[in-house]
Amino acid sequence: MPTVEFRPSGKTAQVLPQTGLLDAARQAGVNIESPCGGEGTCGKCMVRVTGGEVDSRSLGTLPHAAVAEGYVLACATRVLRENLVVEVPEQEGTEGGQFASENEAHLVRQELLPKQWEFDPLAVKWLVKAEPPRLESGLSDLDRLTRAIQHDWGTQPVEFSLSSIREIGDTLRTAEGQVTATLVRDSGRLHIIDIEAGDTTLRHFAIAIDVGTTTIAVQLIDLAVARIVAARSAYNDQVACGLDVISRINYARTPERLEELRTRVLGTVNRLIREVAKSHGVAPQEISNAAISGNTVMTHLLLGINPEYLRLAPYTPTLLQVPYLRNSEIGIDINKQAWIHFSPCVGSYVGGDITAGILCTDLAMPTEDVSLFIDIGTNGEIVLGNNSFLMACACSAGPAFEGGGIECGMRASTGAIEKASIDPATGLARCSTIGNVRPRGICGSGMIDLVASLFLTGWIDAAGKFDRVRSCPAIRVEGRRATYALAQAEESATGKPLLVTETDIENIIRTKASIYSAVALMLKQVDMRFEDLHQIYIAGGFGRYLNLENATVIGLIPDLPREKFHYIGNSSLMGSYMVVVSQDFRQRQLDLARRMTYLELNTDPAYLEQYTGALFLPHTELTRFPSVRSRLNP
Amino acid sequence: MPTVEFRPSGKTAQVLPQTGLLDAARQAGVNIESPCGGEGTCGKCMVRVTGGEVDSRSLGTLPHAAVAEGYVLACATRVLRENLVVEVPEQEGTEGGQFASENEAHLVRQELLPKQWEFDPLAVKWLVKAEPPRLESGLSDLDRLTRAIQHDWGTQPVEFSLSSIREIGDTLRTAEGQVTATLVRDSGRLHIIDIEAGDTTLRHFAIAIDVGTTTIAVQLIDLAVARIVAARSAYNDQVACGLDVISRINYARTPERLEELRTRVLGTVNRLIREVAKSHGVAPQEISNAAISGNTVMTHLLLGINPEYLRLAPYTPTLLQVPYLRNSEIGIDINKQAWIHFSPCVGSYVGGDITAGILCTDLAMPTEDVSLFIDIGTNGEIVLGNNSFLMACACSAGPAFEGGGIECGMRASTGAIEKASIDPATGLARCSTIGNVRPRGICGSGMIDLVASLFLTGWIDAAGKFDRVRSCPAIRVEGRRATYALAQAEESATGKPLLVTETDIENIIRTKASIYSAVALMLKQVDMRFEDLHQIYIAGGFGRYLNLENATVIGLIPDLPREKFHYIGNSSLMGSYMVVVSQDFRQRQLDLARRMTYLELNTDPAYLEQYTGALFLPHTELTRFPSVRSRLNP
Repeated sequence: MPTVEFRPSGKTAQVLPQTGLLDAARQAGVNIESPCGGEGTCGKCMVRVTGGEVDSRSLGTLPHAAVAEGYVLACATRVLRENLVVEVPEQEGTEGGQFASENEAHLVRQELLPKQWEFDPLAVKWLVKAEPPRLESGLSDLDRLTRAIQHDWGTQPVEFSLSSIREIGDTLRTAEGQVTATLVRDSGRLHIIDIEAGDTTLRHFAIAIDVGTTTIAVQLIDLAVARIVAARSAYNDQVACGLDVISRINYARTPERLEELRTRVLGTVNRLIREVAKSHGVAPQEISNAAISGNTVMTHLLLGINPEYLRLAPYTPTLLQVPYLRNSEIGIDINKQAWIHFSPCVGSYVGGDITAGILCTDLAMPTEDVSLFIDIGTNGEIVLGNNSFLMACACSAGPAFEGGGIECGMRASTGAIEKASIDPATGLARCSTIGNVRPRGICGSGMIDLVASLFLTGWIDAAGKFDRVRSCPAIRVEGRRATYALAQAEESATGKPLLVTETDIENIIRTKASIYSAVALMLKQVDMRFEDLHQIYIAGGFGRYLNLENATVIGLIPDLPREKFHYIGNSSLMGSYMVVVSQDFRQRQLDLARRMTYLELNTDPAYLEQYTGALFLPHTELTRFPSVRSRLNP
Repeated sequence: MPTVEFRPSGKTAQVLPQTGLLDAARQAGVNIESPCGGEGTCGKCMVRVTGGEVDSRSLGTLPHAAVAEGYVLACATRVLRENLVVEVPEQEGTEGGQFASENEAHLVRQELLPKQWEFDPLAVKWLVKAEPPRLESGLSDLDRLTRAIQHDWGTQPVEFSLSSIREIGDTLRTAEGQVTATLVRDSGRLHIIDIEAGDTTLRHFAIAIDVGTTTIAVQLIDLAVARIVAARSAYNDQVACGLDVISRINYARTPERLEELRTRVLGTVNRLIREVAKSHGVAPQEISNAAISGNTVMTHLLLGINPEYLRLAPYTPTLLQVPYLRNSEIGIDINKQAWIHFSPCVGSYVGGDITAGILCTDLAMPTEDVSLFIDIGTNGEIVLGNNSFLMACACSAGPAFEGGGIECGMRASTGAIEKASIDPATGLARCSTIGNVRPRGICGSGMIDLVASLFLTGWIDAAGKFDRVRSCPAIRVEGRRATYALAQAEESATGKPLLVTETDIENIIRTKASIYSAVALMLKQVDMRFEDLHQIYIAGGFGRYLNLENATVIGLIPDLPREKFHYIGNSSLMGSYMVVVSQDFRQRQLDLARRMTYLELNTDPAYLEQYTGALFLPHTELTRFPSVRSRLNP
């Protein structure tokens, strides 16, 4: 069998002829980013074959110069009979990246969070004392324990898992019948999921989990003191199989790949759980509550459920409201018998991250004031409502704000230009990069700054086209195509100039238009104006670096007083925290999900109309953006 | 590491010095019978070391002649640094023995069996049609299926296992929404354990299982036609770890050995299930009902529960009434999600085999007539009662009826003398063996025949001592010790004479006394006489070959009209059949178990008194056995 050596890692794989290079890399343990899920469309899996012959379908799709240097798309290339040497370009931030997260509880209004006295998780620890074993009583250990529990909890049925039954004999005899039962309260019955000798009621923990398409975050909660004690996040290991949910669905098309996706997301979740648990000396067994919030596709994939029907008309998911499921069937690294709560999904593209997220907003409160919730990630999800209605929609914003579809775009990691401003006179950009290093590319907030600043200074027009009259050293016009050099080859970390094209700017405009027009359509549906919005909540990692002024200038968000906007951080994680510590909040979330109506944008002609109007900076109707108008015409 | 070769099989194991020979044999895959559980007391694990040196503690306990020939007890012998050659004597019937069982349903009175219209297993198959997926309905696949089920079954909660949720998407789309759900009806809710496309309601099976200390039996039941379609039994693979329950408890003293016992019994059960299933083309998935009946120790061991506390005062088992347990936790080779029913145990030594067994008797019927149930195995369990009381006890009969503790005793297998009669004049025995081959030993029914016949012909007295006055070529008196030669060396299959000693006869008398006196004590407790007994049911494999006349002569069973006695076969298996096919019978069994009071014989001084009186043939009070008296003094 031919051997494929990957450089610079030096890892190798022996594979059969006709094996795809992506599979060979996976076998060798080399991660090659494949954001489109191996469809051959994104071009991100480009590698260079420096030794040996391959069979590549990608030769026609890459530039001649690249082909001449041996570049191929790994997803479209197969091994032949020869040994190969393959150079994998350095990739940023897709493997192993993980970071301690701040506790973001302070971003959420205090009165929205559960108070210590509201702590009431599904599984509770309860200290009981069983009567001693006696021959004449005719009672088994199980009977004695059941009676002790029913003494405190009433005569409802008490159910045991076999694994907890196995513990009872020894446990009841260790501390003279004093045992701590971990019990789950189900309607009308108790389920015993763990039995420990003596009093362990002060050792009880919960895990809140946000499973994002790109990033996974967990929080460890000490239930005994009602406090978040650790938080941590990392890239979802599924990223290697596609950047967005559609790529993941495409990737999942065989049972083996579906299982791979399940294993990958579970692997990331479990790594994070082990880390937060270890950092606080907590054993997995001591964590017997968990809540997981993820979008509908992530929820399906984590459970190993085929997501295919989510992308086929009529877009019916296998499940929306996930029942409580036993961890023995799911496999996260906490108590094996724990019941896992999943935040309910509302539609194929409005998931548990959203029903968790709105718990961090006034939308969860009994108020008539109408508020708006926007979660901008790879998709944009929007919820509008108050105590009498809740409407949700998803717009396929596309990955432009995460650096996708932008020639030199990248995620917000080291080397990304995150801020930019334009000198009105020269048209030259002043940029700052994350980590204060040489720029490698530009991230979403940097693009918004750049586009807003170019527009305000007149270097691009409302359609996003560069000024072809004035001369600027950064702007280069070649026929119909104009590019803007953010950095010259000698300034950039990659040794190539960082260029922003008019197509990139168009992508940003399309993305912002899809979000703005969705909000506009929703308001129209309920006959309301932007001015009627009481609060606007912005969630998601992207929002952290968002310059609200510039976001208004490009027309991403409505032109409203700044104090109406609230950045609430990873609201999916904070919502998970709320429902894992409190049954009341869990019920509140279920009620919200049931009340929520799902607005399908793609089949609504009115959406296209709104969208078309929003395809300008900031909008075709400039009157909608008075503050921007006043800056344009002072 | 030294190598140990076992002959004649030629199997070998490489082991560390100081490894026990029993462990080495197990590692090599060689079964050495160890009925006492490795305590060094039974002497059955004797092997001969023909090559190499060993470290044996058994040298002082074996006869000098045996030691000189290299014999050691495997359980008391350790490997040193040398390679060894070990000869394992031929053993009968402990490995691989298994046999198609007759359907014993005819042994049970027809009106006691569930009728076809009473068939109502816990898990039923139900055909439903889900509405088609529609975008505007906002329903997930799970919602559609739940609605279809609730349409037929009412609005009770419907719960799904994750594994069945994983099937829903594809299944609902295969036969236009027509699916067969396998559902378990729990109080107030439905649990979906399987989902199949289309109508599979005619493919639905159940398994009834009897887990005996020595033998395991299974029945395959076709629920669609309400019929037992196959039955099969085999030796419990745990036999290698000890012959009786006490040896098994002793063996189970480490977690690894407890797990070994669990794996062994599960292995036998699963082999039998696979065989009956395969013989009828049934897939494991299609079997979604199972009931298991076993004594209390077997129940603990099958579930992997430490049985230690069963033999330590105050003899409190971990469980008696086993709740329904999920097969995913148990691991029998049927539908992974099935709920398994265990017949309830009543005390440490009155188990589920008895609460299953009495379903085959009038004790389960609403009658005032008092009946008796006797299950004679390694232990003897006895139940007495009617519709107003039920009393159970266990007497440690000992293994004499199964050939244990008898010098040339053996189980009822090929070569066992199963019938014997004595010529009154000569005192010589006429024997017949199972399989009509040369005798290898004598089994329980043979011993009862022999003792009864020796007694009736006056060759032994009421205390079981041989006539030392008359001369008989078979009887040899050496001082206080007398032996009876059943076969001379040249007649026997072993090449050695088959000798019955007075100690053997004493063992039989002790065993029959323990059973008779238990019955007598129970009757006394309720102030009744033997004559008041309406029916007497004899269960267990041993009963099949029992000669009732001779059993009366030795005083094992009371002297009552023969038509009152009923042999009901493996009633534990037939009881399992009843409860697995019918929820009503399951409820009846639970009620019987709850009503049953457990009489502890060992702590009752009245038992010793009864027992002492019964240590004669047939009894010290000959008036109790008028038919025997008339034969002794015609």
